[in-house]
Amino acid sequence: MPFVNIKITKDGATANQKKELIKGATQLLVDVLGKNPATTVVVIDEVETDNWGIGGETVTDRRSKN
Amino acid sequence: MPFVNIKITKDGATANQKKELIKGATQLLVDVLGKNPATTVVVIDEVETDNWGIGGETVTDRRSKN
Amino acid sequence: MPFVNIKITKDGATANQKKELIKGATQLLVDVLGKNPATTVVVIDEVETDNWGIGGETVTDRRSKN
Amino acid sequence: MPFVNIKITKDGATANQKKELIKGATQLLVDVLGKNPATTVVVIDEVETDNWGIGGETVTDRRSKN
Amino acid sequence: MPFVNIKITKDGATANQKKELIKGATQLLVDVLGKNPATTVVVIDEVETDNWGIGGETVTDRRSKN
Amino acid sequence: MPFVNIKITKDGATANQKKELIKGATQLLVDVLGKNPATTVVVIDEVETDNWGIGGETVTDRRSKN
Repeated sequence: MPFVNIKITKDGATANQKKELIKGATQLLVDVLGKNPATTVVVIDEVETDNWGIGGETVTDRRSKN
Repeated sequence: MPFVNIKITKDGATANQKKELIKGATQLLVDVLGKNPATTVVVIDEVETDNWGIGGETVTDRRSKN
Repeated sequence: MPFVNIKITKDGATANQKKELIKGATQLLVDVLGKNPATTVVVIDEVETDNWGIGGETVTDRRSKN
Repeated sequence: MPFVNIKITKDGATANQKKELIKGATQLLVDVLGKNPATTVVVIDEVETDNWGIGGETVTDRRSKN
Repeated sequence: MPFVNIKITKDGATANQKKELIKGATQLLVDVLGKNPATTVVVIDEVETDNWGIGGETVTDRRSKN
Repeated sequence: MPFVNIKITKDGATANQKKELIKGATQLLVDVLGKNPATTVVVIDEVETDNWGIGGETVTDRRSKN
């Protein structure tokens, strides 16, 4: 019955990569806590880099400096 | 003052259905706990089926099998 | 497959009231969107009044004024 | 290491306004709790007015009445 | 920079199991998306079984029937 | 109408510090976006250091090394 929410910046994660995240997060709950995968829910949020900040600045700005 | 977040897959919920969800969730808090509807907030997140997993696979994949 | 998160202040909601919230929120998703109740998850967070703010002040402070 | 999530209605906040939110929220954690800004994360969610309810109705409807 | 939130029922997960969840979720983001583990945050919420519902009833009630 | 959720490790933040966070986050939304403070909600979650991970390890473990 676990619920996992994964927030990442919107950077072109492919449908296959999202499948791998969902499969892997579900398996992690099975392996570590013996949870039932049938009722394990994973939701991925992809967030624009203008809307994600770290160190007080947006990811958009951080990347423009590199 | 309650805050309710409803996450559903993005499947063409209409504006009217979303109104019903907001009205119903607010009324539920009034009926069960006597909360003030004026300060009850409901936020609906509609999530792509590629980004929602259950049973270790995406909703996109589950549906393609049926 | 919906996921509902209900945040309320920690004010002595009883186990029965929490049952009613869970039952009602699940039924709402069934009634409005035809969702499957078996995979509808509801999580209730009860938050200390020191940790909940509205209008720029804590609920603790607002209540002490009334 | 704090994590801040700011949910607002989608109303044309500019990139600069989002920078100000991220900068300000990060600084708040530094000023009040002495947190390390380098690992402070801020995520802004912009929510359609059809998906945000207060007082039992959508923001879309509330605004159409004014 | 990803942020992962894992919600589980409060059932006596040990400190070691929580370490495994944090390590595993971080590694998943590294393996699938090449994310930087240094800025990957994982937060685990443990929720009372009275506060977690599935199928319209609390986990407390579901378990009492088995 | 904004909703702000601040997650911090449980480290003895005082009631006064939490008031400052709530006041400051609300003012930030007023200053940057002209939001109405009366309907701005702030919720603070304090998370045990065993339940918060960064860099693949718990905050408990990171601190024990310093």
